[in-house]
Amino acid sequence: MNPASGSTGFVSKSRLGKLNRGLSVIDSYKLLKEGKELTEEEIFLASALGWCIEWLQAYFLVLDDIMDSSHTRRGQPCWFRLPKVGMIAANDGVLLRNHIPRILKNHFRGKPYYVDLLDLFNEVEFQTASGQMIDLITTIQGEKDLSKYTLSLHRRIVQYKTAYYSFYLPVACALLMAGEDIEKHTDVKHVLVEMGTYFQVQDDYLDCFGNPETIGKIGTDIEDFKCSWLVVKALEICNGEQKKLLEENYGKPDPENVAKVKALYHEINLQGVFAEYESKSYEKLTTSIEAHPSKAVQAVLKSFLGKIYKRQK
Amino acid sequence: MNPASGSTGFVSKSRLGKLNRGLSVIDSYKLLKEGKELTEEEIFLASALGWCIEWLQAYFLVLDDIMDSSHTRRGQPCWFRLPKVGMIAANDGVLLRNHIPRILKNHFRGKPYYVDLLDLFNEVEFQTASGQMIDLITTIQGEKDLSKYTLSLHRRIVQYKTAYYSFYLPVACALLMAGEDIEKHTDVKHVLVEMGTYFQVQDDYLDCFGNPETIGKIGTDIEDFKCSWLVVKALEICNGEQKKLLEENYGKPDPENVAKVKALYHEINLQGVFAEYESKSYEKLTTSIEAHPSKAVQAVLKSFLGKIYKRQK
Repeated sequence: MNPASGSTGFVSKSRLGKLNRGLSVIDSYKLLKEGKELTEEEIFLASALGWCIEWLQAYFLVLDDIMDSSHTRRGQPCWFRLPKVGMIAANDGVLLRNHIPRILKNHFRGKPYYVDLLDLFNEVEFQTASGQMIDLITTIQGEKDLSKYTLSLHRRIVQYKTAYYSFYLPVACALLMAGEDIEKHTDVKHVLVEMGTYFQVQDDYLDCFGNPETIGKIGTDIEDFKCSWLVVKALEICNGEQKKLLEENYGKPDPENVAKVKALYHEINLQGVFAEYESKSYEKLTTSIEAHPSKAVQAVLKSFLGKIYKRQK
Repeated sequence: MNPASGSTGFVSKSRLGKLNRGLSVIDSYKLLKEGKELTEEEIFLASALGWCIEWLQAYFLVLDDIMDSSHTRRGQPCWFRLPKVGMIAANDGVLLRNHIPRILKNHFRGKPYYVDLLDLFNEVEFQTASGQMIDLITTIQGEKDLSKYTLSLHRRIVQYKTAYYSFYLPVACALLMAGEDIEKHTDVKHVLVEMGTYFQVQDDYLDCFGNPETIGKIGTDIEDFKCSWLVVKALEICNGEQKKLLEENYGKPDPENVAKVKALYHEINLQGVFAEYESKSYEKLTTSIEAHPSKAVQAVLKSFLGKIYKRQK
């Protein structure tokens, strides 16, 4: 155990996070350039777009933590939990967001794709906020009703709340920088949204079945009555009796209730169902990617898939 | 008294507000067209821009009410006070904001000034959020210190938090629609920001000296320790003893404390000081307006000034 770590044994994480989304703009742009050395300006501009995505995420995380009454984020207290901050955090979130058009104006105003960048960030922000809205209104406190939790609802939330900004946005930025018309790349968008969905299903899986030391947190989706892929899939598989057990135990803070839900997950072999889902998804995604006419675009998509396939954290 | 009104005697107000800012886009555009009849399309587009300003304001008001722990807005409970809403209101605010780029894209994407509209709304949002930040960090609860309250701080807060979006933005929208380059109209911006400042000073004055029946609310700036023009001006005029009285009584909820502050305001003749400020401002603004080379732009600015000069509500 790291002596500098806290009582949970986890090393305290950076306020910045892992910067995966931002960094993938540069990675994607490199692959689109097919091995040609990038100029300093190109690296700078791709990094600037990467930061725009990171600020977009920071903005949403600051507001999400307020709305979810969260306590910690990236191993530290949530911003709004600091005594001198409080609800001012909402305006701080807005200020983070305002970095995006400022960065774009400062560095891209003269580029032919400037207006497309503005449209892209606006569209993706709207999709993310819409996903957040669907998520918030389906999990309103005091209205615990599992009958609303279906695969299609789960898919819709994940697609809007996570996939667009985490998977499609970095690649769309790189495509615009490479001079592509993103309106003509709906197939790329489709593959990336599918990949984002698969990524979130993994996330839901690891929350329950992952190793806390590896994923860096202790999952509480069961306690929090989350619309997780696991509960949605369980509800699909369960018989009447098992469904009753879920209804009685899902979304309660007591460890005994949580243990009963987990036992049920084992009973219906959710781990096997997930393994099946994972390999099917991988297969489908690979087929879609290989159907793409451009080898450079294929490389971008395969690189994303390679990073997340069978991840343990 | 209106029989439909509530116990305070005020008619319950519309959730939409008075729409002054939105309507002034159409008024301004008409004046810029110097009496030429507007086409249906022109009226539609000016109205669309007016709605963008209204959504921008709605977004800020929803978040401001959360941050100020307000109770009512436009005669009804604040959005976040509704039991089924709560902190979800933060995301609803974001959704309101996202109407702006959607409206702009739907109706202006082909126009030569589309990118300027996007830049304008982004810039004004940033100015407003910055003004809100200055306001929030100077009035942090538990740190009541009148020595921070100066005319220059008051001016900075008002300029950023109110003047840009309420006064400059509607006219800038109308100028863009009329094919003008707003970068070349810094003098217009300057006059409108001055007018916005004057408007807010009136607001501060009416909060204390206005007729509650006329202004539609009972002012609580003294109780709330607001950085109002009145207290800032009083601190400038006061002798040591009077300053001590202010320090002891400003920002306390007890009516006795409030009465002492009001008595001091009368003692130092703040009403006279305001009347002097009002006529001086009017004079300066008129001189600036008449120096403008375009009669049409003069008409726009004079129309704004006429609407607010010596207003009682």
